[in-house]
Amino acid sequence: MNRKNLLAIILMGTFIFSCKQAAEKNQTVDLNSQQELIFPKGEKVTNNNFIGDVWVHMQVMADSVNQNSVGTVTFDPGARSNWHSHPNGQIIMSLDGEGYYQEKGSEKRILRKGDVVKCPANTPHWHGASAEKPFIQIAITSRVDGPTEWLHPVTEEQYLNGN
Amino acid sequence: MNRKNLLAIILMGTFIFSCKQAAEKNQTVDLNSQQELIFPKGEKVTNNNFIGDVWVHMQVMADSVNQNSVGTVTFDPGARSNWHSHPNGQIIMSLDGEGYYQEKGSEKRILRKGDVVKCPANTPHWHGASAEKPFIQIAITSRVDGPTEWLHPVTEEQYLNGN
Repeated sequence: MNRKNLLAIILMGTFIFSCKQAAEKNQTVDLNSQQELIFPKGEKVTNNNFIGDVWVHMQVMADSVNQNSVGTVTFDPGARSNWHSHPNGQIIMSLDGEGYYQEKGSEKRILRKGDVVKCPANTPHWHGASAEKPFIQIAITSRVDGPTEWLHPVTEEQYLNGN
Repeated sequence: MNRKNLLAIILMGTFIFSCKQAAEKNQTVDLNSQQELIFPKGEKVTNNNFIGDVWVHMQVMADSVNQNSVGTVTFDPGARSNWHSHPNGQIIMSLDGEGYYQEKGSEKRILRKGDVVKCPANTPHWHGASAEKPFIQIAITSRVDGPTEWLHPVTEEQYLNGN
């Protein structure tokens, strides 16, 4: 093989590699990079209402006239909320990744990008990331009839098997 | 130039072109392709409360306990709502594109991916796409104290100059 051919083959290899990188970089939202996210990842949760690594970015606080709080929540794989309920229910909008959602007495559901859940009032439920992938959601919570009631943690058995 | 070199150069050109295409395709949400969107584009609006081409996908309807309606709205460039107000205000979350937002008596604002607006109660306002780019937003509207009050259309002067 002469030098020109060798050079051409090396250059081609470089372009194929760059192409693969460019495509992979842009294919999906990079859940580890805030630059790629629609909304900021926010602050890491430090209270005991969650298990695992969870970040919350509060976008809107409830007030006396518009009693909704809106925030974006990012769960690392395996992370989830404790069981809890809301006097006016809750709306969950899935932005990216793969999540779990379960209401008391119902089977665990898998949530993916674009899935929207309207959780009924005073219904114990939990939500979080799947065991394998992170999960990003918007949580819209009405406070008209009071704040969130936090309950007990979600066991490994409940988390993995929804029992 | 011998055949091998020519072949190598043609192959290289093909890879560069494919690479460029792959990168461009994935760089941003394709506002013209529902496949690329987080939420469905929904149905084209046919009422007179909007100017231009607007699509609405209602995700959650208000009920007696959780009195929030949630929908995704897609505005083509130049499209906008009429002036309107809400008894409990409205929350707008910008998902993609470039939008305009104006409250009566305030300057027109430009909204981009990630911007969130909490519109006060009983405050006439309008929102839509910019003149050049489409705009996708989530609208969260509380109905606790009543429905949206629709007002007059936004003139070209108001739309372009915010006056």
